[in-house]
Amino acid sequence: MVTKFKQMTNKISIGIDIGGTNVEIAWVSPDGTIVKHSTYRTSMFNNPEHMVNKLSTFILKENKSIAGEITGIGIGAPNGNYYNGTIEYAPNLNWEGIIPLAKMFSEKTGLKSKLTNDANAAAYAEMKYGDAKGMKNFLVITLGTGLGSGIVVDGNILYGSTGFAGELGHTQAVENGRTCGCGRLGCMETYVSATGITRTMKEMLKQSKQESLLRKLDVLDSEAIFNAAKLGDELAIKAMDYTAIIMGRHLSNYVALFSPEAIFITGGLAKAHEMLIPTMEKHMNDNMLKIFKNTCKIYPSALIEQNSGVLGAAAMLIED
Amino acid sequence: MVTKFKQMTNKISIGIDIGGTNVEIAWVSPDGTIVKHSTYRTSMFNNPEHMVNKLSTFILKENKSIAGEITGIGIGAPNGNYYNGTIEYAPNLNWEGIIPLAKMFSEKTGLKSKLTNDANAAAYAEMKYGDAKGMKNFLVITLGTGLGSGIVVDGNILYGSTGFAGELGHTQAVENGRTCGCGRLGCMETYVSATGITRTMKEMLKQSKQESLLRKLDVLDSEAIFNAAKLGDELAIKAMDYTAIIMGRHLSNYVALFSPEAIFITGGLAKAHEMLIPTMEKHMNDNMLKIFKNTCKIYPSALIEQNSGVLGAAAMLIED
Repeated sequence: MVTKFKQMTNKISIGIDIGGTNVEIAWVSPDGTIVKHSTYRTSMFNNPEHMVNKLSTFILKENKSIAGEITGIGIGAPNGNYYNGTIEYAPNLNWEGIIPLAKMFSEKTGLKSKLTNDANAAAYAEMKYGDAKGMKNFLVITLGTGLGSGIVVDGNILYGSTGFAGELGHTQAVENGRTCGCGRLGCMETYVSATGITRTMKEMLKQSKQESLLRKLDVLDSEAIFNAAKLGDELAIKAMDYTAIIMGRHLSNYVALFSPEAIFITGGLAKAHEMLIPTMEKHMNDNMLKIFKNTCKIYPSALIEQNSGVLGAAAMLIED
Repeated sequence: MVTKFKQMTNKISIGIDIGGTNVEIAWVSPDGTIVKHSTYRTSMFNNPEHMVNKLSTFILKENKSIAGEITGIGIGAPNGNYYNGTIEYAPNLNWEGIIPLAKMFSEKTGLKSKLTNDANAAAYAEMKYGDAKGMKNFLVITLGTGLGSGIVVDGNILYGSTGFAGELGHTQAVENGRTCGCGRLGCMETYVSATGITRTMKEMLKQSKQESLLRKLDVLDSEAIFNAAKLGDELAIKAMDYTAIIMGRHLSNYVALFSPEAIFITGGLAKAHEMLIPTMEKHMNDNMLKIFKNTCKIYPSALIEQNSGVLGAAAMLIED
């Protein structure tokens, strides 16, 4: 009798998260453990070709020291198109036109490469390693410089007919509202994001004579607003509330369309979730159609302290 | 050698469309041919039990004359819940609470019964018998007394976690806008529907001194507005445009979330599609994020002259 031993292969996927500030790269095992990790400044790359060349060389060198089979490369990037593996007109990256990034990585490394929008990558991560495990209908909102969203319907990321579905940040929150980087007016992300709350705070400081810790600061950013709010600064609390109210009210529309069981928030501004979520949930439910009231909860992402973009990008390559 | 003949069975599904005014029932073959059809006034039924008893008796009697195998009953109804087969708090039907209608029909007739929201039934019909055949991501909007919507994502109707997803009519179109039957303010259907455009017209007639054919009418309804607009009545045209602009602007938000390849409009008001769609499309694209511009077309439903509700309800029972 011959006993066959099934060889246990350790499969490792490479995740790349391309942001306006940093490019992160990680080697990830199927259980979500990061076995190797590096960060580059995005500005060090002159153009996409330069980035692909540098990272591909790094990948091929590092792969030699990885104990396991490399399944491929998953990329998360702003304006990423899953269907085509391209980045299209990404203003935050100063890259013009349509860049076939997945194909470029594949050609340089010989590895299978997939690409998606950075917020979709965060949704993959939440589904595989976060609190959305087992959920079929949920939404992940990334609150960073902008507002990104990854929508999951019946257990799958929603890509729509173009591959670009899920642009909650560019739905209109306020009619004839603030000018957005996309050239339109009143987009959600001009209110609900790190830059959005900073704009709100600056407006409030200008319009009011009220004392505020923030008047003494040289640099006003979302972290400073959050810290001031925690110390009881009334104007900072008002800015936090205003942000959460706009988000909550708008999410009642979202629930009427998608009826998700949960909404997860992540990204820098989401670290203030203890102040934001109760107000968001109240205003979401206050504005909700009766049949949806209290059917959807808002949670901080379980991966809020990690880079879920890089984890989710890698997760795209893990076979079920 | 024995030659086996596969018996060709003619399968017939029963569709029931329950509306505020009429209840329609039809026997439908898999190719969408209506082989038998009847209409009842909704008001002739005292309560759901009365309706189920009457219709079940009718069904069992008529089935005897149908040449074919009856696959079951599909029901389309306002506030219908596909998961539970229930109608829940339907204001247009004056039925209180939660009614397990699919189960009630099943018990009375012995036939398999499925139930869905009336707008989802219209989406099924568009997918099976209309111009959405082969499309994976599209939206059907029913413009009747209210505004209903059936959303198709990756080839499936979107039900969400509750079974109630797709309430586009109750997303907010105007902040602090018109009071809606649901008790909230500014819902899309208070502007874009047969009753919505009538409200707009009445407001315009009141606020303006301009001549209008409509000033002479005893009964002002959406059909009268459409007819006046066709005759060149300036105020009626203004009301049509206002309705189409609100819809178009709002649909740009919808496309940013779902990225459908097409939007179909059906129902009474959609018969004015030649006046509505060009303005809708213009304002949708004018407000669209760059990556979505001109990626989604608006069409009149191919079933606009038929009751797609009853066809779609029956289609739920047809196996692929």
